[in-house]
Amino acid sequence: MAEADIALIGLAVMGQNLILNMNDHGFVVCAYNRTVEKVERFLENEAKGTKIIGGKSIKDMVSKLKKPRRVMMLVKAGAAVDSFIEQLVPHLEKGDIIIDGGNSEYTDSIRRAKQLEEKGLQFIGCGVSGGEDGARYGPSLMPGGSPKAWPAVKEIFQGIAAKSGGDPCCDWVGEGGAGHYVKMVHNGIEYGDMQLICEIYSIMKNVVGMSNDEISDVFAQWNKEELDSFLIEITRDILKFRDTDGKHLLDKILDSAGQKGTGKWTAISALDKGMPVTLIGEAVFARCLSALKDERVEASKQLSGPKVKFEGDKKQFMDDLKQALYASKIISYAQGFMLMREAGKIYDWKLNYGGIALMWRGGCIIRSAFLGDIKKAFDKNPNLSNLLLDDFFKDAILKAQAGWRRVVVTAINNGVPSPCLSTALSFYDGYRSETVPANLIQAQRDYFGAHTYQLLSKRGEHVHTNWTGHGGNVSSSSYNA
Amino acid sequence: MAEADIALIGLAVMGQNLILNMNDHGFVVCAYNRTVEKVERFLENEAKGTKIIGGKSIKDMVSKLKKPRRVMMLVKAGAAVDSFIEQLVPHLEKGDIIIDGGNSEYTDSIRRAKQLEEKGLQFIGCGVSGGEDGARYGPSLMPGGSPKAWPAVKEIFQGIAAKSGGDPCCDWVGEGGAGHYVKMVHNGIEYGDMQLICEIYSIMKNVVGMSNDEISDVFAQWNKEELDSFLIEITRDILKFRDTDGKHLLDKILDSAGQKGTGKWTAISALDKGMPVTLIGEAVFARCLSALKDERVEASKQLSGPKVKFEGDKKQFMDDLKQALYASKIISYAQGFMLMREAGKIYDWKLNYGGIALMWRGGCIIRSAFLGDIKKAFDKNPNLSNLLLDDFFKDAILKAQAGWRRVVVTAINNGVPSPCLSTALSFYDGYRSETVPANLIQAQRDYFGAHTYQLLSKRGEHVHTNWTGHGGNVSSSSYNA
Repeated sequence: MAEADIALIGLAVMGQNLILNMNDHGFVVCAYNRTVEKVERFLENEAKGTKIIGGKSIKDMVSKLKKPRRVMMLVKAGAAVDSFIEQLVPHLEKGDIIIDGGNSEYTDSIRRAKQLEEKGLQFIGCGVSGGEDGARYGPSLMPGGSPKAWPAVKEIFQGIAAKSGGDPCCDWVGEGGAGHYVKMVHNGIEYGDMQLICEIYSIMKNVVGMSNDEISDVFAQWNKEELDSFLIEITRDILKFRDTDGKHLLDKILDSAGQKGTGKWTAISALDKGMPVTLIGEAVFARCLSALKDERVEASKQLSGPKVKFEGDKKQFMDDLKQALYASKIISYAQGFMLMREAGKIYDWKLNYGGIALMWRGGCIIRSAFLGDIKKAFDKNPNLSNLLLDDFFKDAILKAQAGWRRVVVTAINNGVPSPCLSTALSFYDGYRSETVPANLIQAQRDYFGAHTYQLLSKRGEHVHTNWTGHGGNVSSSSYNA
Repeated sequence: MAEADIALIGLAVMGQNLILNMNDHGFVVCAYNRTVEKVERFLENEAKGTKIIGGKSIKDMVSKLKKPRRVMMLVKAGAAVDSFIEQLVPHLEKGDIIIDGGNSEYTDSIRRAKQLEEKGLQFIGCGVSGGEDGARYGPSLMPGGSPKAWPAVKEIFQGIAAKSGGDPCCDWVGEGGAGHYVKMVHNGIEYGDMQLICEIYSIMKNVVGMSNDEISDVFAQWNKEELDSFLIEITRDILKFRDTDGKHLLDKILDSAGQKGTGKWTAISALDKGMPVTLIGEAVFARCLSALKDERVEASKQLSGPKVKFEGDKKQFMDDLKQALYASKIISYAQGFMLMREAGKIYDWKLNYGGIALMWRGGCIIRSAFLGDIKKAFDKNPNLSNLLLDDFFKDAILKAQAGWRRVVVTAINNGVPSPCLSTALSFYDGYRSETVPANLIQAQRDYFGAHTYQLLSKRGEHVHTNWTGHGGNVSSSSYNA
């Protein structure tokens, strides 16, 4: 009876496709779903002619698994995951493995790993990216949790994952909630990449006055160079796409972006952990502003801006735009890796940064040649403290810098918003500043709240100054500002 | 025995000063502290010769209060507040009022108001701003909670509050956690104001090459004009302040800013509620970046920028800087009021926006003439949907716009970071855009995740396009991106 290599719970499209993918790679999968009729339908249709088997109940499903039992869930994040874990536990034995492949919050995965490990079981929280197509033909997989579980699932996971230059886009991320954390940061970076492309598109359209087809041609060219990536590729295609009436579909689409939360989670985590992940923050806020369509329409009638006037050399400016996009992207990924490094410190995860770059290199939405260069940077120096200090990226930014500044200045002078291109530049200039004006913030806080400050010459020692000559010399530890 | 108008628990500096302030205004206060000896010491020293009395225990304290009993706590936010509430409740009667004047999270105040109201008691969560001096001689007070409690505390609160043109900087904010929410937004705006002043100071110093004394003189002048405010005033003084060796103290202070969380809470709340409060977000992130001093020192040796070259007319540029600061401040307050409006909708608080401006007009860290203008805008039109659409502020931004753009462009061309001045400008240009490029985001999301989009011509209807000609026409409701 114990014939299946792995069980998979949840037969929505993502689950079905992962099962079919596993089957293609020679693994026997036992499919299960809360509504059991769905299992029958799947076996009679999509799974017909495969080695896939079905479970009639949780107990029946578990009984068909080889040991250690591997049970993967692809169900709605939240209560459903806890509910299935509760149903599974009584049927499992020490060393068995529960895998959550949904979009869970990493804090839930930290909790679940701990709870299951206390029971002698093992847990993997696995980020899955690449959408339905990825699930079917090669997703990016980001597994983290109980380290001992990894050898038992490695062959299956690396087998079904996307490949980049022969290497699987799946490796062990780290302990506890590390897999879902890295997936969350992936999604945050995806928000940033998308917003950067939008800002470039908007400058081409609204400042340079280019048509959709012209813009598409530029993206087509960029997709053959260092910006080669899935998002540039689909942007090229979207810009050319015609509706049934022959007109560009893009121009007909409402400019109010939706979101499902993972970009927001990344920005919140950055704020919580004190890491300046400004580009993702601005990208999330840009979606918020886009959603205020009616307010914007009203404001556009009342608030004026400069007249648009493009004066530069168009060909040179196309290169400037490419440099601006490229440099801003470097900043965004540098910020993302800063955040993961900080989270790793806080949660004591031994993160494998080169491995993360490789996991994102293929299979997922942000897949790109660029991630290959990040992988190389960490291969060269696994202890690289910041992507911006790697020679390859340092040179790239140095080369990009003049064009990048020209683009942001042009956008500002023409009244076209470019929050992510601008914040990236501000971050670059701030990060490379030995001195920033925060000495004044510290003086102000000490002035009005006696919060104390440190002297450059005596770091570690907290000093209070009686700035006004009255009000006492007592420093504050209770007033919040 | 029932002689006291109000009891106050917590005899740290803020609590003592509030008691002395109440005493000055003719109210009899019963002081209490967990360590009861502190009460005796206070009565024998700071409170000597006043009408202030002491409580020997919670029970004793309560027995000395007129009905309805008013008990205000100024204790550490968090568990201490819940613990005192628990100790108080058995001694109180229906209609009695518990007031939390600490820096509590608004979500805690929502919970406490509900719990106490269910017991027939009343709760006020009151934001208190102005530091120790404010507490003693006139704080800004932002009370919210059980609406029926307001008439019973109004005389005391408005009596001791700061006055602006004769009006008290204290009014009823709204239900539940509204008081602490508005205090949180106040602190977020304070982060923004401080960072904006720092950016201006940094451009004056690093681009124009001005001395501290010259910069101080400019702030002194601005403090007599529309930017008249407490933070500009203390910046003027800080820039002139000399250490015992005759050198400027400001230059000796470590440029790593601390924070106690309320700015961060505001940015997180903005992300959570989907409001683009970009300026506070960038201000918090700027503090985070400032804290990475050692990384910045290392990066400054490796990453280069443009050579600084100031070419403009210095006098004209001083006016540009003033306009940039003023316009960015308008944006920041507009964003803060957008956030409060959204929170009011979500939590069903009937917020009084003009009242909030008046509460901030005096007594607190962000007090300024500017808040008087905001008050006027809401007096003119209590239903004003956005500060940017008020005639006074619309004209101000129109007038400021050209100089504002010149300042941000100058900062960018000289490699001096100005994240808050820039993000404010991006927001302005985005808010006044009938169309933003989020149509492309929606197309991308529909392309890779079948998330659907809306047509400009058919809002409310969600459409999916099969962009690639393969992969099916099913739209997604489970994949997160």
